[in-house]
Amino acid sequence: MDLTPVRGCRDFLPEKKIARDAVIEKLRRVFEAYGFNPLETPALENFEVLSSKYAGGDEILKETYKLTDQGKRDLGLRYDLTVPLCRVVASNPRMTLPFKRYQIASVWRDGPIKAGRYREFVQCDVDTIGAKGMIADAELIALTQDAFDSLGMKTFIKINNRKLLDALLLKAGVPSAKQPDAILSLDKLAKIGKEGVRAELFERGVEAKSAEEILAMFDSFAKKGNDEIIDKLASIVGAEDAGLKELRDVMQYCAAFGVREDFVAADPSLARGLSYYTGTVFEAFLTEGAITSSIAAGGRYDKLVGAFAGRGEDMPAVGISFGLDVIGEALADGTKEKKTVVRAFVIPIKTGAAAAKAAQELRRMGVPTAIDLNDRGVSRCLEYAAKEGIPYAVLVGEAELKQKSVKLRDMASGKEELLSVAEAAARIKSTFCSR
Amino acid sequence: MDLTPVRGCRDFLPEKKIARDAVIEKLRRVFEAYGFNPLETPALENFEVLSSKYAGGDEILKETYKLTDQGKRDLGLRYDLTVPLCRVVASNPRMTLPFKRYQIASVWRDGPIKAGRYREFVQCDVDTIGAKGMIADAELIALTQDAFDSLGMKTFIKINNRKLLDALLLKAGVPSAKQPDAILSLDKLAKIGKEGVRAELFERGVEAKSAEEILAMFDSFAKKGNDEIIDKLASIVGAEDAGLKELRDVMQYCAAFGVREDFVAADPSLARGLSYYTGTVFEAFLTEGAITSSIAAGGRYDKLVGAFAGRGEDMPAVGISFGLDVIGEALADGTKEKKTVVRAFVIPIKTGAAAAKAAQELRRMGVPTAIDLNDRGVSRCLEYAAKEGIPYAVLVGEAELKQKSVKLRDMASGKEELLSVAEAAARIKSTFCSR
Repeated sequence: MDLTPVRGCRDFLPEKKIARDAVIEKLRRVFEAYGFNPLETPALENFEVLSSKYAGGDEILKETYKLTDQGKRDLGLRYDLTVPLCRVVASNPRMTLPFKRYQIASVWRDGPIKAGRYREFVQCDVDTIGAKGMIADAELIALTQDAFDSLGMKTFIKINNRKLLDALLLKAGVPSAKQPDAILSLDKLAKIGKEGVRAELFERGVEAKSAEEILAMFDSFAKKGNDEIIDKLASIVGAEDAGLKELRDVMQYCAAFGVREDFVAADPSLARGLSYYTGTVFEAFLTEGAITSSIAAGGRYDKLVGAFAGRGEDMPAVGISFGLDVIGEALADGTKEKKTVVRAFVIPIKTGAAAAKAAQELRRMGVPTAIDLNDRGVSRCLEYAAKEGIPYAVLVGEAELKQKSVKLRDMASGKEELLSVAEAAARIKSTFCSR
Repeated sequence: MDLTPVRGCRDFLPEKKIARDAVIEKLRRVFEAYGFNPLETPALENFEVLSSKYAGGDEILKETYKLTDQGKRDLGLRYDLTVPLCRVVASNPRMTLPFKRYQIASVWRDGPIKAGRYREFVQCDVDTIGAKGMIADAELIALTQDAFDSLGMKTFIKINNRKLLDALLLKAGVPSAKQPDAILSLDKLAKIGKEGVRAELFERGVEAKSAEEILAMFDSFAKKGNDEIIDKLASIVGAEDAGLKELRDVMQYCAAFGVREDFVAADPSLARGLSYYTGTVFEAFLTEGAITSSIAAGGRYDKLVGAFAGRGEDMPAVGISFGLDVIGEALADGTKEKKTVVRAFVIPIKTGAAAAKAAQELRRMGVPTAIDLNDRGVSRCLEYAAKEGIPYAVLVGEAELKQKSVKLRDMASGKEELLSVAEAAARIKSTFCSR
């Protein structure tokens, strides 16, 4: 029998899972600090919902795990958390707005497996539904800065606006009908380079002159500061362009929220692949290191929820998604993995009941504690504690009990002290932050 | 388009999800206090693993969601967390033992939908692999007591031993070959009553005389104290019976761990349906209230991991699984649902940037804070905060700013106070326990 995990899926043993949970806990704290509430939706969705023309599109549908239940219903595993969110909002028309929610959960895509790409992976999504002003977009950028700060990661965020990008394309002579196609190509600029984009634009029927003009425009923005870029954009599309105005608004609100100036980089070439974005788009990156792919990304999608609801009207929506795997990968270099949550290992020396009692006292005082379950001798117990990376051993023997004490052994230094259980608990707790 | 969740699956909107997360957090704390480490495994498993003859059995396999990936691999959604655990342990032969892990995750069963039964539901499993002594079983019972105590639930746990049950059956004249079948029937005693069990035993070819004898035995244990039951068992199977000895050991270790005497109830009729149990079995119940089904259950399964590994030898294993839904249901009566995690709603009164700054200060000081994103007037903002159940509004106007203050409004009493942002944060934080 093949005991490896399903292709593209992973087991996370404690040493990986502890680090993963710590990242999730930090993200949750920031998400909740910003007033976002948790939401849970099923892993299974009706295939009709996943394949709605307003949803993820053909590319993603090809990678969707499809199945049928015993009642012959067509189901699929969700490929993102945005479609379920739209379904929930569309099916709850009496919901109080704005609805600010976060969801941290697995999604599945049966796609090619590359470095850093898996078939089951966790997304951490934060979305505001029902707020049309750019303050909502800026709030998410402030949240993103705080989230990465809390993880100790040096990052910045590129922002752009789809309306502005459309206006630029129009200026370059790309007609409206060709703009969604052109955006899909431009989204790959970082990945396939100018030559690649030029070729793709040509294939998609964008005139060579227009393609050159766009690429030249993008070149002219490179390495410019935000103010310069905004001025330049105003000179191309006019200061009153709706998209440019939104971009300026977002940046103003970012300043109000105390976002660092160097955290935000206006980038008129930023496209984002998904077709459902309607305004602001953003994508966060590490400022240094080997990982060049984005570590969080999102934008405004004012038409998606309304489309799901089958009602004509727009429902303002803006969101960002954090990639847990890429964050974990970025952090893995810097942080020491913890093999265990256990802080104390109780070793009974012919004192079964008394040792069990000491373990229970430590647990009640908030020290994650294990006790020898295998009736091993002291030295084999110490070996186990060392191997597991447990920082303290607590020896409970007759001699210690006579003094109403236990022997606390610092596993790193080997130093031993005779202490009461309460003193031992206090000592151990002083060395770690309880959750 | 049908926007309801997939049949048998559920959306958890914030008011439900917040309560659910709180239960999970409390369970996690107790699991970790007892030295169990977190594990994550994929939702998808190879169908070969799920359908192994050592796994859940035919009944559960009929309810397994099956699917095929693009590489034509047969996959299934996991129906429990025990099979993935066995796979992980079997595939990591160098693992340090004992391996104590917990996993809190969704499982899927495409079965009949009844009250309290869903097709996607969360299991909270705690297992110790590699400890053969009854101290490991007792530790899980102590953990179960602490877990329910921490949730404020009044519960008790029935315990029995499969070896002992086999010995009783043998005494009643049920041959070894018929014992697994008989156990499946006896497991239903509470559900289908004596008449039902009698009929089933007959159908399964157990002699009428033996059936009567077993049921009479079980009757004779009813309403007896633990000591009396142990004595009576000793008189039937002999004091040296291996199963009885294990049961006594578990109870002695429970006492050492400080488990309350009235928390543990020896119940020689307790069977547990799954065939893989080899020793201790236990099942926890509420002491009062309408819910009579078990709220946690488990036992020892010393042969399962070894079977997965394809190695002949046993691998000691004991575990317990908490049902998140039934716990949530039991708690729902007693506790007030929280609609939101947000503790403060900042209302700008023509003071955009200053209000945003105040919101950021509150957030940094650990107060989950929302700010008006819709440019609404004060009274509509207060309405929103009230509707959402946010306990405090923070009004930021010119008049307040001149005094370097904000106006903190207690939404319940309507009382307003002029405070600095730091004072407001302290006031709000004094009313809730931060995670």
